[in-house]
Order: sequence, then C-alpha cells, then structure tokens
Amino acid sequence: MNGPVVALSGGIGGAKLALGLARVLPPGALTVIANTGDDFEHLGLAISPDLDTLLYTLAELADPLQGWGRRDETWNFMETLRQLGGETWFALGDRDLALHVERTRRLAAGATLAEVTEHFRAHFGIAARILPMSDAPVRTRLRTAAGWLDFQDYFVRRRCAPAVGEIQYAGAATAAALPAALAALADPALRAIVICPSNPLLSVGPMLAIPALRSALQQARAPVIAVSPLIGGRAIKGPTAKLMQELGLAVDAAEVARGYAELIDVFVADEADAGMTVPDGVRLVTAPTLMTTLADRERLARAVLQS
Amino acid sequence: MNGPVVALSGGIGGAKLALGLARVLPPGALTVIANTGDDFEHLGLAISPDLDTLLYTLAELADPLQGWGRRDETWNFMETLRQLGGETWFALGDRDLALHVERTRRLAAGATLAEVTEHFRAHFGIAARILPMSDAPVRTRLRTAAGWLDFQDYFVRRRCAPAVGEIQYAGAATAAALPAALAALADPALRAIVICPSNPLLSVGPMLAIPALRSALQQARAPVIAVSPLIGGRAIKGPTAKLMQELGLAVDAAEVARGYAELIDVFVADEADAGMTVPDGVRLVTAPTLMTTLADRERLARAVLQS
Repeated sequence: MNGPVVALSGGIGGAKLALGLARVLPPGALTVIANTGDDFEHLGLAISPDLDTLLYTLAELADPLQGWGRRDETWNFMETLRQLGGETWFALGDRDLALHVERTRRLAAGATLAEVTEHFRAHFGIAARILPMSDAPVRTRLRTAAGWLDFQDYFVRRRCAPAVGEIQYAGAATAAALPAALAALADPALRAIVICPSNPLLSVGPMLAIPALRSALQQARAPVIAVSPLIGGRAIKGPTAKLMQELGLAVDAAEVARGYAELIDVFVADEADAGMTVPDGVRLVTAPTLMTTLADRERLARAVLQS
Repeated sequence: MNGPVVALSGGIGGAKLALGLARVLPPGALTVIANTGDDFEHLGLAISPDLDTLLYTLAELADPLQGWGRRDETWNFMETLRQLGGETWFALGDRDLALHVERTRRLAAGATLAEVTEHFRAHFGIAARILPMSDAPVRTRLRTAAGWLDFQDYFVRRRCAPAVGEIQYAGAATAAALPAALAALADPALRAIVICPSNPLLSVGPMLAIPALRSALQQARAPVIAVSPLIGGRAIKGPTAKLMQELGLAVDAAEVARGYAELIDVFVADEADAGMTVPDGVRLVTAPTLMTTLADRERLARAVLQS
C-alpha cells in the first residue's frame, strides 16, 4: 500500500508520531498540517510553537527530554534578559531565537507563514512538507475564572492552573486553509489522513474549526485515522485530561473517539484501552501508543498505516 | 577640584576614557552623553551600538579584545541564523541580543530611548549617568561611489571600504537634546566637559550637529576639553584617518583641534604630538593617550581632569 499521507499535528505528542511517519514513509510522502492556534507575539517576535516543535522534531534536532526546543541549546539570552528585568516566562533558547527573529523579519517583509515555514523546512533538510493550518491568524483563547486568557498565558505562564470553562478559536471560522493543504487532502492517491495524538481541544480543535479543513476531512476518500492521546484515561503529557474534566467531558479515549466521530474511519487506541467503545462507523484498532524511543514512533506509525 | 563632569562619547575609544573618568571620579559624578547617529534597525531590532558599548564598558562587561560586545559572550543565535539563511553581517551575541530585544520591546511600548537606557544602566549597576544625545532619531549617512549609505552598511557591512565624499547627520538639525543633558552642561558646579577621543566626524559630529548641544557647549562656563583620537597622525582603531583623508582634511591631531576650535578650551594630545599647533584660544596639554590597560584609562582620565 503506497501513496502520500497527510498528518494533522499539534506540538510534542503529535510531532513524535509525525517523525515516526516521516521515517517509515518514502521521502516526501508525508505532509504535516500544523496547528497555529498557539501562535503568539512575544517580545515583538512572531512565535509558532507547534510549527517549531515539528521543525525541530522532523529535523531530529528536538530536545529529547522536554520535547520542545532544541537539544543543543544554550540559554544566555534568557539569563541576560532576566538580569535586565525582561519577561522570561516563555523560555527562548539562543538557537531557537534565530528561528523567531528570522520568521518575524520575513513576515514583516511580506512573506506568508507558509512561505517562512517552507524556507525553514528546506534549510533544516526536512523531506516532509510542513504546512500551517492557515496563513491567517487563529488564536486559541480560554475562558477561566481569571477571565479570557490567551493560549500561552494559560499554557505556559499559568501552567494550565486555571480551570477552563470554554475554549474559543478566534479567527478560525473565517480563516482560509492553505490551497496546498486542501489539494493534499483531496489527492486521489492519498493513502491516509492521520490525526496525531495531540490534544483534541487545544491542538486538533483549532484545525477542525477551520471550515475548509473540516470539510476536506469529511469529504476525503482516504481513510481518516485518529490516534488517541489518552492511555487508560491519562494523558502522556500536558493538560488534556484536566481540561476534559473541567469541560464536563469523560476523561477517556472513548470520549476522544466520540468527538471525532463524524470525521474518522479508524480510531487507534492504546492496548490498555482495548475494551473501549467507539462510535458506529468507526473501527477500533489497538497498538502500543506510548512513544518513548524512536523505534516506538516508527512502530506506531507502521501500525497506524496498516490499520 | 570637585564637581560633576560631562563626557561626550561615541563607542569603543570614547567609552575607554569614559570608564577611566567613572573610576577616578566620585560615584555618580559622571554624565556621559552618547552618540546615537549609529543607531539602526536590524532584524526588526532597535540597536544602539554606542550606547551598548558604553553600557558594557561602564559595567566592566565589555569584550577587552574587540572593544564592542560582551566578554562572556556566546554566538549560537548567530550560528543558527546563518544556517537558516538569515542576515549575519552584523554580529549579535546571545547575551547582547537580550539588550536589543528588550530595548525594542520597551520602545514599542512607548518608552523613550533615554528611559530604556536608564533602565539598563540601573540593572547593570552603573553609577555614571548615560544619556542618548537625543530621543529623536538622528542617522549618520555617508555619500560614497556606491551612493548614500546608512552608517552600519558603510561601517560594518562594507568595513569602511567605500571612499566617503560627504557625511550627513539626518535629523540632527531638528533633534531636541535631552533636558537632562542640557541641565548637566549648564550646571554651575560643572567641573569639565570632556569630548572623548572618539571619531570627530562619525561619533562627535552627530552630537555637535544637534543645535541645542552645540550651543550648550559654546555657552558652558566649565572648561571644554577635547582628547585627540589620533596619535602621530594615526587612529588607534577605526576609519578616522582614512575618512579624514577622503574628505580632504589633514590627517593629524592639529586638524582635529581646528575642527573643535570654537567649542574647546583645552586640547589633550598624545605626547607624540607635543609639537603640534593648536588654534588661538585653545591650550595644548599632552599626555599618554593610548589606553591599553585599565590603569591607562584612569591615568588619562586624571590627566584630562587636571589639564
């Protein structure tokens, strides 16, 4: 079974599977559509956390412990900024900073986010195509007891502590998907569309809130395969479980599958969730979904492609 | 002899004497007015090279070999920017970058350049006051065979190679001096005004092109003392000699003294220039002006103050 594959991914967890897919597929067969709902401007710099994590992960430059940032990083900028009384709640490594400064410069000179991302992809020597979900700004915001918070304020500055009552993907309803993304999703040769094990509400949600992307998934002839970000009711990393609970959702893989019901053909859950129920019309496949090593990522990628 | 001292300084050479003055005067007795004609925007960042060199030098953080930048610097941002195909002709160290990012952020938030500089001064624990020559942008430009060039394009990118036919201090004629600078220059207790051994055309020229600063020097009751940047017709560093020659000036300390004639009371030249002539009304003092060690800087500072 051959043909190109499209993956929808957020940051760390999604990027792990994207790397597995990139490594088991022929070079260039993978297109990753990335969440940009986390993007923000900080210290005057245009920062795209999920695109950056995908770039570093697919270039095999990512920090293996943190999952975000680069493994060969130094922190002298940050240390000095702290000494100067600057804002240091969002960690920016010295090497990482080059990406943000250069992105900001190129955007200010009139390039689109997709063009800047393609420039970085080429310079990092990444074979997979990486597309932002839109060139238009979409901003995830969260209603909490402290009011509406911007995503990074909630996620990084406040470490996901405030209870969330509502999530908004500001700008998504009118954001255009990239023509290249829609073409990839409509490709008659497409082998599969993979929704990576990213946070359904914070990472996949913004992508599916873009009408053209959602329709493209609904109309796709290729099978749509979602991989569960929960194992036995717990998230590997991040606030998925906490957030689902706060929003009154059941905290398990079945709830995630229900959320994707009208879009997916296959739901890949961890073997720990073999007994779960999936919505009618969705086929359950189980596989080891915990991705600690590179071999884990490749194994899960193969299981997803064979599901 | 006591009382406050005001120094007018450009970057490297001027900052060396400023440090000497700061070290031999009581804490807080020194005010440095800095050239900002070299300021520019690069990679979206507001960069003030002479202010930065003064901050690093007075904080005793400057790189002792280069004279600019910090001595405990790393270059991972720059190396990564090069890998990403960014503009790397202006060297920005990882620690140095924090100053530019924070300055840019504060200016964008509405602070003046003087306020940002004062913030940095306080955070670096510098006792001397450091004032930009103006909060308004003044930009030194040079007419060459390649057309009018911005200062850093000429100075750093093209390494002063193009022959200069004319120098312009764009914005200087209408730039306001800082009230704090004018007050310091008019202080009845003022002991001396020192024109540091900076490039007369590129570093001191922009300051003297601001009408209020020039008048303040002309009207000052305190003695105005200029220190020669040339020793035996040669500049210690930078393009001073080359530039003077290209502009049809004699390349010697006497020419520098003539340029300052209507403003100064004392001209401090190197002992190698003991036989030089100075304009009427200007008193010649000689001293060792080469500042290699910290002791050299303090010795020259004492000689200037006792002149």
